[in-house]
Amino acid sequence: MRSALGWCGAVAVAAGIAFSPLAVSADGDDAIKLRQAMMTSIGAHMSALGAMAKGDVAVSAQAKWHARALIKLSGIASQLFPAGSGTGETGALPMIWENTAKFQQVLADFQAATPQLAAAAESGDAGQIGAALGAVGKTCGGCHETFRKKHDH
Amino acid sequence: MRSALGWCGAVAVAAGIAFSPLAVSADGDDAIKLRQAMMTSIGAHMSALGAMAKGDVAVSAQAKWHARALIKLSGIASQLFPAGSGTGETGALPMIWENTAKFQQVLADFQAATPQLAAAAESGDAGQIGAALGAVGKTCGGCHETFRKKHDH
Repeated sequence: MRSALGWCGAVAVAAGIAFSPLAVSADGDDAIKLRQAMMTSIGAHMSALGAMAKGDVAVSAQAKWHARALIKLSGIASQLFPAGSGTGETGALPMIWENTAKFQQVLADFQAATPQLAAAAESGDAGQIGAALGAVGKTCGGCHETFRKKHDH
Repeated sequence: MRSALGWCGAVAVAAGIAFSPLAVSADGDDAIKLRQAMMTSIGAHMSALGAMAKGDVAVSAQAKWHARALIKLSGIASQLFPAGSGTGETGALPMIWENTAKFQQVLADFQAATPQLAAAAESGDAGQIGAALGAVGKTCGGCHETFRKKHDH
């Protein structure tokens, strides 16, 4: 029976998270975890499309799914840098919260590039996917070079 | 200038991924990464709501955002166990692909529980959030206990 644990224990056990009542995750820690999970997801979706673009695997129906996921992820990226999430185990630089205009611009560039990747994925052509992927990758770099710690990869 | 790298190098550098042309991520590896990132996201959203339910932080407008994210994540969970993603660095058990009827059922339970959490988050009441969070946590456990390696937490 799980019920003796109450909801808190049930959630911790179910999610595989060991948190003590005195050291519950603060909002900032959760925001960092969410941000890193989002970055991992972006990287994995791009990697899957990269394998198709390179011809390591055939362009499959999954290409559209990966590209659409990147549209969604690029759309929520701006929500994953809340105030207070710049301290702790993060590669995010303070400049994110200091030069918000430039930061919002690079996020907008990212968001603008993903629909073209989806169009390329729709075509099923490896070359088009590669070109669109490169354009998306440039927007990743445009942010990472300025707003991320150099050694935190 | 990034252009000398071509799209592949640009993507790898931008995403912080070091992959060699000969050891590009296979679809299975990317699927595992995506699945683990999704699990991390689910855990972080639940942890943030848990902190509100426990009163460690005030119930904020973020509660709805976390709950809505869990609705979305529960909706895509079934897509993150493609054939071929059961080998490698994963805690996923073969039973997922053997007892698909039961597996789909526990995923459906998860998906059915998250809208109630969103309703609780909408109420702004910590007690309601805690109760709904416990119900979602039970569905996590319903899957993890049967379909995940015991030591892989």
